[in-house]
Amino acid sequence: MPAALHHVVIVGGGFGGLYAARALRHAAVRVTLIDRHNHHLFQPLLYQVATGGLSPANIAAPLRGLLSRQQNADVVMAEVTDINVGSRHVVLANADFPRINYDTLIVATGSQYNYFGHPEWERIAPPLKSIDDATTIRRRVLGAFEKAELETDRSKQQAWMTFVIVGGGPTGVELAGALAEVAHHTLARDFRRIRPQDAQIILCEGQVSVLGQFPPDLRQKATASLARLGVTVRVQVLVTQIDEHGVTMKVGERQESIAARTVLWTAGVVGSPLGTALAKAIGLSTDRAGRLMVEPDLSLPGHAEIFVIGDLANCSHQTGEPLPGVAPVAMQQGQYVTDVILRRLEGQPPPGPFHYHDRGNMATIGRASAVADLGWLHLSGYLAWLTWLFVHLMYLVQFQNRVLVFVQWAYCYFTRDRSARLITHQPPDHPQPEK
Amino acid sequence: MPAALHHVVIVGGGFGGLYAARALRHAAVRVTLIDRHNHHLFQPLLYQVATGGLSPANIAAPLRGLLSRQQNADVVMAEVTDINVGSRHVVLANADFPRINYDTLIVATGSQYNYFGHPEWERIAPPLKSIDDATTIRRRVLGAFEKAELETDRSKQQAWMTFVIVGGGPTGVELAGALAEVAHHTLARDFRRIRPQDAQIILCEGQVSVLGQFPPDLRQKATASLARLGVTVRVQVLVTQIDEHGVTMKVGERQESIAARTVLWTAGVVGSPLGTALAKAIGLSTDRAGRLMVEPDLSLPGHAEIFVIGDLANCSHQTGEPLPGVAPVAMQQGQYVTDVILRRLEGQPPPGPFHYHDRGNMATIGRASAVADLGWLHLSGYLAWLTWLFVHLMYLVQFQNRVLVFVQWAYCYFTRDRSARLITHQPPDHPQPEK
Repeated sequence: MPAALHHVVIVGGGFGGLYAARALRHAAVRVTLIDRHNHHLFQPLLYQVATGGLSPANIAAPLRGLLSRQQNADVVMAEVTDINVGSRHVVLANADFPRINYDTLIVATGSQYNYFGHPEWERIAPPLKSIDDATTIRRRVLGAFEKAELETDRSKQQAWMTFVIVGGGPTGVELAGALAEVAHHTLARDFRRIRPQDAQIILCEGQVSVLGQFPPDLRQKATASLARLGVTVRVQVLVTQIDEHGVTMKVGERQESIAARTVLWTAGVVGSPLGTALAKAIGLSTDRAGRLMVEPDLSLPGHAEIFVIGDLANCSHQTGEPLPGVAPVAMQQGQYVTDVILRRLEGQPPPGPFHYHDRGNMATIGRASAVADLGWLHLSGYLAWLTWLFVHLMYLVQFQNRVLVFVQWAYCYFTRDRSARLITHQPPDHPQPEK
Repeated sequence: MPAALHHVVIVGGGFGGLYAARALRHAAVRVTLIDRHNHHLFQPLLYQVATGGLSPANIAAPLRGLLSRQQNADVVMAEVTDINVGSRHVVLANADFPRINYDTLIVATGSQYNYFGHPEWERIAPPLKSIDDATTIRRRVLGAFEKAELETDRSKQQAWMTFVIVGGGPTGVELAGALAEVAHHTLARDFRRIRPQDAQIILCEGQVSVLGQFPPDLRQKATASLARLGVTVRVQVLVTQIDEHGVTMKVGERQESIAARTVLWTAGVVGSPLGTALAKAIGLSTDRAGRLMVEPDLSLPGHAEIFVIGDLANCSHQTGEPLPGVAPVAMQQGQYVTDVILRRLEGQPPPGPFHYHDRGNMATIGRASAVADLGWLHLSGYLAWLTWLFVHLMYLVQFQNRVLVFVQWAYCYFTRDRSARLITHQPPDHPQPEK
């Protein structure tokens, strides 16, 4: 392709970046998609990898493979450390190949978990964002049962069998439900000294209810479903300390401690560091969640050639509130900005401001229960779960993955077996308390 | 179960140990299976994980799950560091649970790769024995293409695209064939700066031919198949040095160096360290490959209560030569020793010496070619491959895995796609040359 073509550089191969790259497949532009991972990740099913229900490859697809037939697209696996908005290039953490120039830049680097000023908690309470996070959680959860089985001290054994999940959003709820399934069903007959059924799964949420973004009736149904699965839901608790011994939290005026060797973090998110670097470079400030305030066309103020989409964008012109950090927003934004770019190149008038078509919100709770808020209709229970399953299978990016995930799901559903419960990358790496 | 039952402790959950444990399912004994991993691994397909064709969970199954319904069986995940033959207990690397007593002991800890006095080569040239080894190789192979894509120096680029496999046994041949498929077909359209087709796959073997244990006609067919796939086969070469720059070898009287950033090791194997510890404990010597000489009933001389089976046993009464280190030998030995143990407990006369029923030897070469030596029949090409595929699917331990592997194989066969080509556990970890 001639080098003179307009060059669109996309940073981040998540839902926003990938959909933008694909939407440019017939355009007379060069596309470069940069990601530090070699794969697109279907994050909504990551909790299934963390709990041994699915394999990493079932929910991740190599970016090069997804774009191999798109002749105008180039994939670069590298970390972008900075953006030079003056000379219009991105800076890579790669000595031999340090920069890539752009004509138009799409920043779609998403968000990461926010430890609220306590980065030291991450070592104890891993987040759930990447494949490596998921296999780390899988290793710690399964490793905890192995440790409990060989522990002769009753109170230490109980700490190994106590799992605390901090954060009652969809990821926390899905993870808690799946963990309860693992403990109470999948592993039920696997041990001889402990009863995995006695494991405690505790979901901690600071607000008045889990799934705060759902309407009250569905929140209640979700809470009831979690209780049926054996999950202890603690609301209006504020985590004040996490260490090797467990979690301390503030409940009203009281401090309460839970002895737990496995703590998982699914609380608030914050925009990726590249967003902060970009904001600094152009003299913008980020919002409290580290997101960049974007114009109604998703470009940055004063920089029409830079777009920010997905979790990293604070896009609030539509409702006055930032749009939620969910896949459909990122996907629709990815497609929208390509429309802006192509119209601009063709000298056509810009499209109207970005408008999010909200088709609903879903969260699954365990094996066959879910809540779905479709706006005009609230579903819960089995029907919501089937809807959830159908939508998630449809959006998996590879046909092969859809087939494999379906087979595995059916098997898992009927047998309650989770065949991917492997402990890899040994030794198990729970942080050790100092004695 | 009453503690007075005869206690059979099995160390190692590979083919030998697992088949022994299962063969005792109806016996009035207690069974404890100890393994440092939580899963049984179908090693013959490990090269498929290393090359992104299958996921780890497709070829590994949790040991607890496999034995959960066997009421007389207990699984302990721990490393056995020593055996006390006087007081009849095994020593675990676990402070809280340091020992397990046995009445009868079956040692089935297998073998590991032998770096012929150069343990420092392992860092550069990883072996292929465990799931973690396979994902390490996958990461290095895929990472090498990524590095080559961003390398501007031609000679450095060529070193990134050169893959040396040391050892021309079945694993080396299978790995070389699969790597050639990856480079020449799977990745063919994935890059824009390099042509993966230009990658060099070099298979080095010290003997006169690859697949030394096969008859000459099949060795020739295998060599020809490898050449067709684009693998460079070097025979009668002796590797003398491996470092960050590549491999040096002796070819006749000459020294020759190959610049390669990725080197994989599938050369000779040696018995596991526990075998050496055991030999020392009872004053036996091991053979040159670190295996223990066993009696015709697979027990150790002077210790009728200890059996050694699988790759760790030098069992040579049948042919005068040690039996090969392959899965069928281990499986048959696992079942045989349970027969010896049960007859002993019932006061019956012992069975005859162990007799290996050799049903043949197979190796696959790339996508649709294999060689199969069935003794009375030599197969090669497509028919041998179908035989190979059928046998391997049949022996996978879980029905779900058979279905999933079959679906993935069919998909991979028709599309040449390998969807599990994920780079996980970043950053890629090729050892760096000092500059």
